[in-house]
Amino acid sequence: MRFFRMTVSYDGTCYSGWQVQPGECTIQRALEEALTRITGRSIRVVASGRTDAGVHAVGQVVSFCAETRLPPETLQKAINANTPDDIFVREVATAPIGFHAIRDAVSKHYRYLIQDGPHRDLFSRAYAWFIPRPLDVDQMQAAARVMIGRHDFRSFEAAGAPRRSSVRTIYRLDVGRIELNCTQPIAVDVEADGFLYNMVRNIVGSLVLVGRGDYDAAWVSQVLSGMDRKLAGPTAPACGLTLMEVRYDVDAGAGEGGGD
Amino acid sequence: MRFFRMTVSYDGTCYSGWQVQPGECTIQRALEEALTRITGRSIRVVASGRTDAGVHAVGQVVSFCAETRLPPETLQKAINANTPDDIFVREVATAPIGFHAIRDAVSKHYRYLIQDGPHRDLFSRAYAWFIPRPLDVDQMQAAARVMIGRHDFRSFEAAGAPRRSSVRTIYRLDVGRIELNCTQPIAVDVEADGFLYNMVRNIVGSLVLVGRGDYDAAWVSQVLSGMDRKLAGPTAPACGLTLMEVRYDVDAGAGEGGGD
Repeated sequence: MRFFRMTVSYDGTCYSGWQVQPGECTIQRALEEALTRITGRSIRVVASGRTDAGVHAVGQVVSFCAETRLPPETLQKAINANTPDDIFVREVATAPIGFHAIRDAVSKHYRYLIQDGPHRDLFSRAYAWFIPRPLDVDQMQAAARVMIGRHDFRSFEAAGAPRRSSVRTIYRLDVGRIELNCTQPIAVDVEADGFLYNMVRNIVGSLVLVGRGDYDAAWVSQVLSGMDRKLAGPTAPACGLTLMEVRYDVDAGAGEGGGD
Repeated sequence: MRFFRMTVSYDGTCYSGWQVQPGECTIQRALEEALTRITGRSIRVVASGRTDAGVHAVGQVVSFCAETRLPPETLQKAINANTPDDIFVREVATAPIGFHAIRDAVSKHYRYLIQDGPHRDLFSRAYAWFIPRPLDVDQMQAAARVMIGRHDFRSFEAAGAPRRSSVRTIYRLDVGRIELNCTQPIAVDVEADGFLYNMVRNIVGSLVLVGRGDYDAAWVSQVLSGMDRKLAGPTAPACGLTLMEVRYDVDAGAGEGGGD
């Protein structure tokens, strides 16, 4: 039995998220079906995190075990030949015995794109949240700074989905404009040791309230210390969210990171 | 009867091009059906150029006449409410009497996107031509320089589609990398007083042969002077092409530009 680690991009628009669910088209199912066709055996794959319906990935990391002698490059080509156009396996590599994409993750980087007004950019409609008025990026960045570091992020966790601990460490939370062909959407880049359910989308929903001028940066500090989901902003739509990169210890397989 | 000019963006992926054809889903049909629902009368719209199936537009210009008292802003909102998500009217304005989007165009700017290897970027798959190896942008730019100016572009015209004259003037032909979220595709920007059928896509197909190292920049000069379609490169796929902008004389309505 060999352990593998693969890096996968996908356009989540047409999928009911990562996780296999009866009767639903999911990324996990597409990858498992491809591996079954290739190896002739039933294979279970594990992702660093279960992205929701409509969420995209540039660098999702997936682990699996397989009894195959195929070299990783051949496996990569075979999976790509057996998955739809909106999934692309960027790399397959052998991994240390016991490697597990969730358990061994040390940090994850998500990017959220906001396309602010006045005109909707058609070409980013599946990848960005359109807000029909210009947002104040400086204010959003000021509010973001408040959240960097180790905090209890309970106020930004989806209701009804409690974890044992809602303390997480945000290493980086940048808000700035990027170049996207002819448009300049706002990118919210967040890297943390782990995320609560809907945490990025709830943070973005709150930052947008600040960007619109409804609240100032100090409000975010109150939301954080209030530890109540009702204090934060709305959940930003799934389509704007992309999992960019997952980091592992150099000797992953022995790690015990707290990612989810 | 009032004359109107509107600027329209569309994602051409799901359309059989601009022009109305029996039984086909086209941009022209979508706009005409919307205007008919709004005004209660049959309205014919004219675009600066009839983009092919799969070709996109950021700033297509469309002219039409209508007997309506609706202000242009109201008309814009009403059309957007009556067209699918992949069409967006950016502006509606009244135009001088006789304004005609084809006849009065002075120049058009197209952009062609090439996403070169080794990894396919999923998120630009509907908007860029993927070539699974890196291209030499400097060589492509050198070859592009040869085509700037007034030339007979017969070698770059689709076979079987002759115009009265195949002489056109290219004002600008730039090849360079742009930022597109996390990728750096090659953009070919071309502005000319008019284009022969498939001219941009044939120019791009030829530039790609240079970028791959199959030919040097001097070869393009031979193709141009040879005046034979068979000498040029292949037609680049439609999905990479976007009509960016159409220019008109300040007092459009009295112009007589040579756009097509």
